[in-house]
Amino acid sequence: MTADTRRILVIGIGAGDPDHLTLAAVKAMRRADVFFVIGKGEEKSGLTDLRRDMLDEHVPGPYRVVEAEDPWRDRTPQDRSRYASAVDDWRRRRADVYERLIREELAPGEHGAFLVWGDPSLYDSTLAILDDIRGRDTVAFEHEVIPGVSSVSALAARHRIPLNQVGRPVHITPARHLADRVGEGPAETLPDDGDVVVMLDAHQTFTRFTGGDLWIYWGAYLGTPDELLVCGPVSEVADRILEVRAEARARHGWIMDTYLLRHHG
Amino acid sequence: MTADTRRILVIGIGAGDPDHLTLAAVKAMRRADVFFVIGKGEEKSGLTDLRRDMLDEHVPGPYRVVEAEDPWRDRTPQDRSRYASAVDDWRRRRADVYERLIREELAPGEHGAFLVWGDPSLYDSTLAILDDIRGRDTVAFEHEVIPGVSSVSALAARHRIPLNQVGRPVHITPARHLADRVGEGPAETLPDDGDVVVMLDAHQTFTRFTGGDLWIYWGAYLGTPDELLVCGPVSEVADRILEVRAEARARHGWIMDTYLLRHHG
Ligand SMILES: C[S@@+](CC[C@H](N)C(=O)[O-])C[C@H]1O[C@@H](n2cnc3c(N)ncnc32)[C@H](O)[C@@H]1O
Ligand SMILES: C[S@@+](CC[C@H](N)C(=O)[O-])C[C@H]1O[C@@H](n2cnc3c(N)ncnc32)[C@H](O)[C@@H]1O
Repeated sequence: MTADTRRILVIGIGAGDPDHLTLAAVKAMRRADVFFVIGKGEEKSGLTDLRRDMLDEHVPGPYRVVEAEDPWRDRTPQDRSRYASAVDDWRRRRADVYERLIREELAPGEHGAFLVWGDPSLYDSTLAILDDIRGRDTVAFEHEVIPGVSSVSALAARHRIPLNQVGRPVHITPARHLADRVGEGPAETLPDDGDVVVMLDAHQTFTRFTGGDLWIYWGAYLGTPDELLVCGPVSEVADRILEVRAEARARHGWIMDTYLLRHHG
Repeated sequence: MTADTRRILVIGIGAGDPDHLTLAAVKAMRRADVFFVIGKGEEKSGLTDLRRDMLDEHVPGPYRVVEAEDPWRDRTPQDRSRYASAVDDWRRRRADVYERLIREELAPGEHGAFLVWGDPSLYDSTLAILDDIRGRDTVAFEHEVIPGVSSVSALAARHRIPLNQVGRPVHITPARHLADRVGEGPAETLPDDGDVVVMLDAHQTFTRFTGGDLWIYWGAYLGTPDELLVCGPVSEVADRILEVRAEARARHGWIMDTYLLRHHG
């Protein structure tokens, strides 16, 4: 690594509460010359504002912000292999955008930063995209990752619960994968092999589990002023969550929610 | 909640790097009148020092620190149900200690803080113990949880990897549970149902998985000046990890390590 290496900082910024920034994240933000902001469409503009507010508060400046459009992504495919290939395809186009940003907007020797929602290691494509670009050998750079507080940790904190039971595992899963695993019938029972945290759920998969003794700890817009929390046996609170969720989603135009499913035996 | 309610702050402090403290954790530390420090024996005194350094750096004072001895814990039982009951038993005695601290060392209206390693939601007993004490109805208190960067996020950040593959789950598991699942034979193959993060491993369980295409991303003393990182196919790097680990453990008198197992297909 020489003085004219391009340096990328992948900075976890927490999942909604600006005070979930770490001291390391603040220091890294102050080292950055350029911030890359990838637009995700207007529904998420609240999230872009949160990033701007963080910069205003913690970076005395001067710095540059470079915005780019997120490439269009095909969200229709339902089965797993087509989903993965749609994601692959979208990543490749996203990598094209990132590669151009790094090559054209970051001078050799400068630091460029990506502010990543929550923790960069959970269901985020930034790291895979950087590896992909490195493999192309078109622009040389170093990169460093600053971990963040994930929405999973935020969920547990707000419900004041551990994610695991003594000596047992916790599974973090995209809703789609959980749905594939349990099949289509109503009132399924989730196998009791530890707690399950569900992310990226566009279909309220929890409503399948109204049989048995399963509890849900649900949270939306965690860490923000719009935060919503509901917990209780799935069989008792599922309808309330559906109602609260639909109402909030209509009001905001978008929703981010996560939940833990736990057997209370 | 009235002005003379006792308030407990359960503060995640990150898993080794003092800069993994969040802004919320720093603010919470400054709200505390008393810090409860539970001694874990001399081998872990490095960890107690780290907590002291954090207080010195971030809390202008005045504050009190109250130390208590961790009750003795039976670490012999090997099977799962006896393990759980030994943990239960130890928790009950630990709850006795915490209850006494809250009742005798925290005045009504004061804030007392527990500084919890990593994120309080992962393999930590503080929250369960507070629920237990609340159930006793012997001393009234409110409590709040401030999430932290877990050693799992720190591991992923240092290896610059995601914890999950696209659309697939990640399983976080105590080594003991993983060992129970796979049986005793050598060179077992781990079922490929997503990535597996292993914690609390006193027996180097990864050495069972030298068959197949499994990779390991291993880290010890993450975030500290003594940090160690090794990654590669288990079949190629297992011996090196055993060596590095044994050497470091002998030198420090204790070790904390975590790893991710991933199928590279
Ligand atoms: C693409 S993933 C990114 C996760 C992120 N890297 C993290 O560590 O939280 C987006 C998913 O995270 C969850 N999520 C993120 N922020 C959230 C929040 N503030 N409240 C509730 N769920 C959130 C939701 O399940 C959402 O579908
Ligand atoms: C009792 S658990 C507590 C976990 C903690 N609450 C967290 O969020 O990281 C202790 C286990 O966490 C892992 N661990 C904690 N700190 C670590 C570090 N600095 N480096 C490597 N592993 C660590 C090890 O697997 C250890 O056995």
